[in-house]
Formats: sequence, structure tokens, C-alpha cells
Amino acid sequence: MVNKTLTAPLGFQVGAVKAGIKRSGKFDLGLIVADVPCTAAAVFTKNKIASPTIAISRKHVRNGQVQAVFVNAGNANACTGQQGHDDGMAICRQVAERLGIKPSDVLVTSTGIIGKMLPMDKVEAGIDQAINGLAHSAARGKELARAIMTTDLTPKLAYREIMLGKRVVKIAGIAKGSGMIAPNMATMLGYITTDVAISAPLLRQAMREACDITFNKVSVDNHNSTNDSAIVLASGLAKNRMLESDSRNYQLFAEGLRQVCDDLARQIAADGEGARCAVTVRLTGAATKAQAHKAIRAIVDSPLVRTAFNGADPNWGRIVSAVGYSGARFDPAKLLCKIAGTTVYENGGPCAFDAAVLSRKMKKKYWEIDVDLAIGTCDDFCYTCDLSHGYITINAEYHT
Amino acid sequence: MVNKTLTAPLGFQVGAVKAGIKRSGKFDLGLIVADVPCTAAAVFTKNKIASPTIAISRKHVRNGQVQAVFVNAGNANACTGQQGHDDGMAICRQVAERLGIKPSDVLVTSTGIIGKMLPMDKVEAGIDQAINGLAHSAARGKELARAIMTTDLTPKLAYREIMLGKRVVKIAGIAKGSGMIAPNMATMLGYITTDVAISAPLLRQAMREACDITFNKVSVDNHNSTNDSAIVLASGLAKNRMLESDSRNYQLFAEGLRQVCDDLARQIAADGEGARCAVTVRLTGAATKAQAHKAIRAIVDSPLVRTAFNGADPNWGRIVSAVGYSGARFDPAKLLCKIAGTTVYENGGPCAFDAAVLSRKMKKKYWEIDVDLAIGTCDDFCYTCDLSHGYITINAEYHT
Repeated sequence: MVNKTLTAPLGFQVGAVKAGIKRSGKFDLGLIVADVPCTAAAVFTKNKIASPTIAISRKHVRNGQVQAVFVNAGNANACTGQQGHDDGMAICRQVAERLGIKPSDVLVTSTGIIGKMLPMDKVEAGIDQAINGLAHSAARGKELARAIMTTDLTPKLAYREIMLGKRVVKIAGIAKGSGMIAPNMATMLGYITTDVAISAPLLRQAMREACDITFNKVSVDNHNSTNDSAIVLASGLAKNRMLESDSRNYQLFAEGLRQVCDDLARQIAADGEGARCAVTVRLTGAATKAQAHKAIRAIVDSPLVRTAFNGADPNWGRIVSAVGYSGARFDPAKLLCKIAGTTVYENGGPCAFDAAVLSRKMKKKYWEIDVDLAIGTCDDFCYTCDLSHGYITINAEYHT
Repeated sequence: MVNKTLTAPLGFQVGAVKAGIKRSGKFDLGLIVADVPCTAAAVFTKNKIASPTIAISRKHVRNGQVQAVFVNAGNANACTGQQGHDDGMAICRQVAERLGIKPSDVLVTSTGIIGKMLPMDKVEAGIDQAINGLAHSAARGKELARAIMTTDLTPKLAYREIMLGKRVVKIAGIAKGSGMIAPNMATMLGYITTDVAISAPLLRQAMREACDITFNKVSVDNHNSTNDSAIVLASGLAKNRMLESDSRNYQLFAEGLRQVCDDLARQIAADGEGARCAVTVRLTGAATKAQAHKAIRAIVDSPLVRTAFNGADPNWGRIVSAVGYSGARFDPAKLLCKIAGTTVYENGGPCAFDAAVLSRKMKKKYWEIDVDLAIGTCDDFCYTCDLSHGYITINAEYHT
């Protein structure tokens, strides 16, 4: 596991406590608090049934300045109407008051069960305790990575350092995923801290572009959540020269940010609910970007395909037939499909291959599917996982 | 179980044998043979990776006349290229020769594993044996209903009689479903016999309209198959006055045909792979037909929703959030959701309900979900089932 946490970039403290919101009694509430007002950007769920906290955070991040982020797991504060909104605002006010900052500089994020009011007595006590325990330590950062987990089995951390001239710029991230994971944000919370000096518009651009090709490429179960949020705070304390649009330094930072998000996105796919393996599906040769996306979605949204992943079954028929009904144009006579590097379908027909050998490759934790539509030059990819008994157990038994 | 089979309408014999195509050694090959050339219509898969038999049957049914239908289970003859096409034509020729009819009056349909060549020696011997055993008996009809099964647990039969003036017209159907079941035909084979006298264009119209609101409303796993076919043969031996377009008698027949297809469609949903319960999802109040369809698909394609069905969990949050990301317009303040008749979400927020009582209703075999988008007048519905451990077991272990 990565040893650096959100506290590694200069200027960030975190708090994490067991507030009693999760039935398990584990860490479930946390705060990220910057020493100075940060430049901030965020990407939120497109679900029309969004948590009221999404509306609050969206509004508070609009001016590009944020100094604290609240998070709780165990209760999503979604489908909670006016009361849910009032609770979200009360959280912002309490955090701001204790820290001596403005409520509008606080973001509020939640994950967990939908349709239950937040237990505000526990939340308020938790905030007090978290603020009392704020620290710049890596240990506290790891506790926070645990506090955001729901059905995740492992905390997810990523870290990169880049050199901008002679300045070291640090970028750290944590995320949670597991279920309700689909392209266009999932039940996914991602928090990134960095000490880069950057303007709000540029940070927004870098974050949006990074999310598009990382978090938004993860599909566990084709279900967009009500609470997805990915947030980046930049303290500016690395004291690099302010990044300029299109500059080489901006490109270096954007690539570092993408790498952190990509690392987290892959961890989310690998820890999808019940997942045995993490599969990267790559699609090439589509006529248009939209058709590449359609074909990828048909493959990764097929429970038949994903149960074959689970069984380590080189069942190319399910993959090829998913492409067949995707609506994407392709040349049936030239369609190509590879599983874990082995060509299984070519020139419109099956290839000879050793199924036992290929099945052994599919029993590994990480492998790939490659599909070429052989009709154009557009491509797409997706990080997904298998569909297992574990997924059913988790989701048939996770009761309201 | 319905006692009437495809042999009940006047003029139909069937054959069914154990040809050794299924590993289990069960019934796996059959024939429907009419005493006279029939008026025929069919609806086929839209999958672009279709079995070569689909192309053959589509061509043979085009003139509206068919006298025999071949079916085998255990091997889909899909992704088999020119050889698969040649095998399909050889089947038509053999059947035609033995019956003294034209190969172009024979349809050929297959279901089972994709990408393997048909074992033609077994198929040829099976055809001979099936023709030798052709009979008008109900017992043979039931054997045929078993011969088309793959992972189906039960044979699926439906039967209706209608009076057209003083003539009794009989309509009988059998179907197989189970996996790869999605709107726009699934791994679904449906065969309907009737003794009505009807023109080919009218039969085509009645069949297309019936399939649209029955077989095409079934979703088990959002995976369209390569082999889906629904075929109707009309012998004309009921000797009713030839049906006329828009006549009351045509309406009566069309409704009877719809009922047979609907009965079979519901049986397919109820016997979806691993299914514990059959759920009808009804969507009302959409702005457009397309948006109603989008919202329905988001609900029934969500593994999270369908695992909640399995757990008899009134987890309306998953349903409402699926609508939220469906892309359908709705009024969040007026959205309504009912589970098994109980209102669980109304006026943009959760309702008080007794979760234990509702969960008991969801433990039944048949129940409904109602969602009202409260923004328009268009509606849609879908027959689906829960996603269970059984589905995973069947599909992770059904090896190529």
C-alpha cells in the first residue's frame, strides 16, 4: 500500500473518527482541512436523484475556493429532501465555526444507504472529535482512507511527485468505490490534495479531463450513484511558479493528476463488490467515439460476459455477441477479439486456442480484453471486474 | 402445465428425439411438420453476429409459406461461418427430401453454445429418427417443448381457443428462454401453431405486433442472443372465413396470438436463469415513448436493483437512483415508486412503510414495480426476474 496520504502535500491536516454511523462501529467520519484557503475543483454525479449535499458542494466549489471537506460513510443523505439539505448546511456551518472559516469554503460529501436521515447527533459529536484530532500525520491520513469505505475491502491510496523546475509538487489521492459503480461517476468518492500553485480554471480543466479518462472509465455494475464526487484541493504551498495554460509545467501536473486518478480508478475496479479479477476492456477500430463507447458498454454491462470472467471461461461468444447487439457498426468478417493476449476470434470466426491455458491466464487478478471493430479509427476503454457470488451476497443482503 | 401442445391446432405433427447434441443426453432435436403448406411469419434477432441459420430462415419465410421447422438445442450453430451456413442448408434439404417438400419451405433454428460446428452426423440421424416418429399427439408435443430447452428448468407451453363466428380457432405455443434474455428478442425460441386461415401480410402484422409487447418486453440479463427466433405457422384448417384487415375477427385472432405470446413471455421471465421471482416493472408518466423505454431499461438492467429483488429487499433507493441516471426526464418532486402495491417513494421523498411486511410480499413468486415519472403520458413495461447466486453458478460454470 502507498505510504503517502492526503497529508503528504504541503498544507493539509486530516481527521477521522468512529462516529457510530456505520453499524460496524468502524471509522466513518472524516475531515480534510487545509492550512490555507485552497484552489479547488470537483466533478459530481450526473444522477438527477442526487444527494442534497451534492447541490451544496457544487455551489460551494463554484468560486474555486475551498478550505475544508467533510465526509461520512454509512449514510448517503440521499432522497432526504429539505431535511437532508438542512443537515448538509448544518455540517458546513459547524465545521466552519470550529475552524474559523466561511461555511461556503466547506464541502460536504456522504456515502452509504439511501433514504435515511443523517443521525445528526452522532455527526455533530463526530465533527467535534475529528477537529480535535486533526493532524498532518500519514497515520491519520490512512484512517481517513478507511473512514470513507463502505463495502470496499481495501482502502485506496495513490501518490505521485512531479518536478516543476526545481520545485517538488506532491499529489495524493484516496477513493472509495465498490458498488453502484458505472461510467460517469459511480458510488465513488475521490479526494485529492496537492500543493501545486494553480488557478481555479486550470485546475478545473485538469480535473475534468483526468476524471473523464479514469474514474469515468470504471464500471462495476452499470449503476450511477446519487452521491459520486471527486474533489481536488490545491494549497499552492509548493510555491512553483503559477501554472500557465498549455505550458509544459501544466502538462506535467495534469499528467500527474491523471496518474493518481487512474491508479485509484484501477483500484476501484479491482475491489468491485465481490470481484475476483480486474479486467481492462480495450476497444479499437470504431467508426465514431460514440460507437466505441456503445460497444464497450455492451460488453462490460453484460452479466453473461462478467460471469464468464468470474469462471475464467474464455467464452468469446458472449463478448462477440454483445458487440453484435451494441448498435456499433463493425465489419463481421474482420472483427477481432483477444482475451488475455490470446486471439480467440478473427476474420469472422473462432480461432483454435488452448482453452485450459487461456483459462489459467484469466484466473490471474489482472488481464485484458481487446476488441477491434475493424471499421474506423476511434477507440475507448473500460476498467471492470467479474460478476461473482460475492456481488450477489453483498447486494441481496445489504438491506434497507 | 397446459395440456395442449403444438399438435392441438388442426394439421400439425411434431417429432422430438434425443440426438446426442446435449451432453446431458436429454431431448435435443425436433421438427414441426404441417400436413399442408402453411402461411408463416417470423421475428428474428437483431444481433449483427447472428447464426447463419437466421439468414436461411429469414430467406425461407419471406414468401410467407412454410411447411416444416427444424430445431435443435445444445449447439447454436453461431459464429460458424460458411460451414455453419452449409450445415443449415443441408438440414433444410434433408428434411425437405424426407417429407417430399421444398427446402425453401423449411426453417432451421438452433440454440446452445456459440462457436462450435454442429455435429452433423448426430443431426442427420436425429432428423431421420424424428421424422419416423412424427405424430399428432400431445405427448410428442410435450417432448418437443423439452427438446428446445437449454438451461430452462421447465418447458413453456401456452394455449388459447377463440371463436371466429361458428369456427373454433386454436393457437398453441412453446418457447425456451432462460439466459441471454433481453428486449428485442433474447436467446429465445418461440414456436406457435394455429389453424386459422389468414393471409401472410396479416399474419406478419399480428406476429410483429404481438412480439413487440410480449417477447420483446422480457429482460433477464440485458444480453441479446445470436439465435432468437419466434415463428408462427397457420394451417388454415379451421376453415374460418379468411381474415380481413381491421375486421373484428382479425382483432380477436391478434388478441389470442398476443395472449399466447404474453403467457410464454411471462414464463420465460419466471424461469430466467437462477430466478426466484418474476417481476413486472411498469413505467408511466414519461414525456415520450423512448424516455419510458430508457427509464425501464435503467431499472431492469441494474444488477443492484435485481439483487435487491433477490433479497426481497424493498430498496427503493436503487430503483429511484436508476431512474435518476436513465436520461429520462421526470419531475423529482412528483416521482412515485410502488413495490408490490406499496408506495415507497412519493413527492420526492421516502414514505413510511413496514419493511418487514413489504419484504414478505416480495418473497412471493410474482409481484410488480410501478414507477410514475409524473411528466407526461407515455408508458412502458418489462417482465424481468431477480439476479441470484443461481445465475452466477449457471453462467460462471457453463464452459466453452
